[in-house]
Amino acid sequence: MNDGPQVRLRLDISYDGTDFSGWASQPGLRTVQGTLQEALGRVLRLAREPQVTCAGRTDAGVHARGQVGEVDVPAEVWAAEGDRLLRRLAGVLPPDVRVARVGAAPEGFSARFSPLYRRYVYRVSDAPGGVDPLRRRDVLWHRRPLDRERMNEAAAGLVGEHDFAAFCRKREGATTIRELLRFDWAAVSEHGYEATVQADAFCHNMVRALVGALLAVGDGRRGTEWPGRVLDAGVRDSAVHVVAPHGLCLEEVRYPPDDELARRAAATRRVRALPGA
Amino acid sequence: MNDGPQVRLRLDISYDGTDFSGWASQPGLRTVQGTLQEALGRVLRLAREPQVTCAGRTDAGVHARGQVGEVDVPAEVWAAEGDRLLRRLAGVLPPDVRVARVGAAPEGFSARFSPLYRRYVYRVSDAPGGVDPLRRRDVLWHRRPLDRERMNEAAAGLVGEHDFAAFCRKREGATTIRELLRFDWAAVSEHGYEATVQADAFCHNMVRALVGALLAVGDGRRGTEWPGRVLDAGVRDSAVHVVAPHGLCLEEVRYPPDDELARRAAATRRVRALPGA
Repeated sequence: MNDGPQVRLRLDISYDGTDFSGWASQPGLRTVQGTLQEALGRVLRLAREPQVTCAGRTDAGVHARGQVGEVDVPAEVWAAEGDRLLRRLAGVLPPDVRVARVGAAPEGFSARFSPLYRRYVYRVSDAPGGVDPLRRRDVLWHRRPLDRERMNEAAAGLVGEHDFAAFCRKREGATTIRELLRFDWAAVSEHGYEATVQADAFCHNMVRALVGALLAVGDGRRGTEWPGRVLDAGVRDSAVHVVAPHGLCLEEVRYPPDDELARRAAATRRVRALPGA
Repeated sequence: MNDGPQVRLRLDISYDGTDFSGWASQPGLRTVQGTLQEALGRVLRLAREPQVTCAGRTDAGVHARGQVGEVDVPAEVWAAEGDRLLRRLAGVLPPDVRVARVGAAPEGFSARFSPLYRRYVYRVSDAPGGVDPLRRRDVLWHRRPLDRERMNEAAAGLVGEHDFAAFCRKREGATTIRELLRFDWAAVSEHGYEATVQADAFCHNMVRALVGALLAVGDGRRGTEWPGRVLDAGVRDSAVHVVAPHGLCLEEVRYPPDDELARRAAATRRVRALPGA
């Protein structure tokens, strides 16, 4: 009964990653993907659990406020249930994962391959007494005082297209060349800082390794030129500490205008398929 | 050994009220006061657990980011431990309660009686898909769409000095006359609202009853003139729903300049002691 024409939906998803073993489904573990697929299957009464593909496969403990997913469902089910789907999902999903919007995706849309960029924010507090208790699930406590100017100086030197192998967990045969579009530190309260890290795409652990390198600059353990030297060396550096996942949140995935979605997805797929890439 | 000269300390305290049975110590229950007193006694190695008095005794589930406490400790202990106290408390306290600042209180300071006002914020979301998972512990989900203009119109009619008996849980022999200094609703995101409620002092359940009345106006169940009519009636109205505690946070307690602390405390104590008050 699910074999008729399908419609592709775009889902805008947020979650508190604290109690999830990351995005990707794993047998026996509580994951965001598994939880969403189960809820969709139940609400839409599908014979087979649908497959949800996302823009950014976040690790265990990482949060999202702007995750984007895609799922193909039978057109007749969507026609019958579409208007009610958002509220019914809200009733079925646990409170630590929410679907904020759902709708038919434009032609050529690929949640994973169409994005222009992903924007992550990493939140840190250097308050001597510790993190605001109401924010302790998404803010890292750094016990040493941080100097925002130093962090911004070092971050500016990393922006641009580079081989980020030094800040990535290596995977066989995958390119580590990325375009870092933005990396800066904002002061959001007396002791609160937000690092915005934006790139066309990220390799594994990249944001948390970049933030770890910058915190060492911010508290004076390293000079402002050190992260640039690590980048230039081009190999994973054990001196770079990968910070805890709970300060990290995927805030936004930006897509091109509808008429460029398919072209963008094709171009991304080509780059990822390059020999040695 | 604790019977020598004492020094009064001011503590600036924040907590996630989710897992506390409110501020006030109760045998066998986990409370903010009990947790703080135990930590202070341990860190300062006091023979008797010290008594911490606060500005606003919050109910179970209510949060604070600007709670203020006072505690008297032996002067010699403070002289020896003062500089280390903040960091040692951070190490001993559970992560859902933090002391942001600690210091010797100015002459005449009373956490409870010296304040000029208390400022609470109540947070609500009317997002159709539910509350941002990372904010679900301190934001109420209201399932009906809210109209901020209507809520602000109704709120403005309640500001000023009134007998708030209609919005208070009655306690024998306590005045319910309060000066509501501020009550307004801000839009903080597409579906997020923050009600700021500021008064010289509050009677029990007052903020949550005021917010409950206003939400009924905001979603159209009641007219904008209704909360004013309830106020004028002067008796507890069962039609006023006391909203859930988890949206409420004590954000700030404001004290007068140091040379007016004692006078302010004396004046407050006089008003509270009035016959029938």
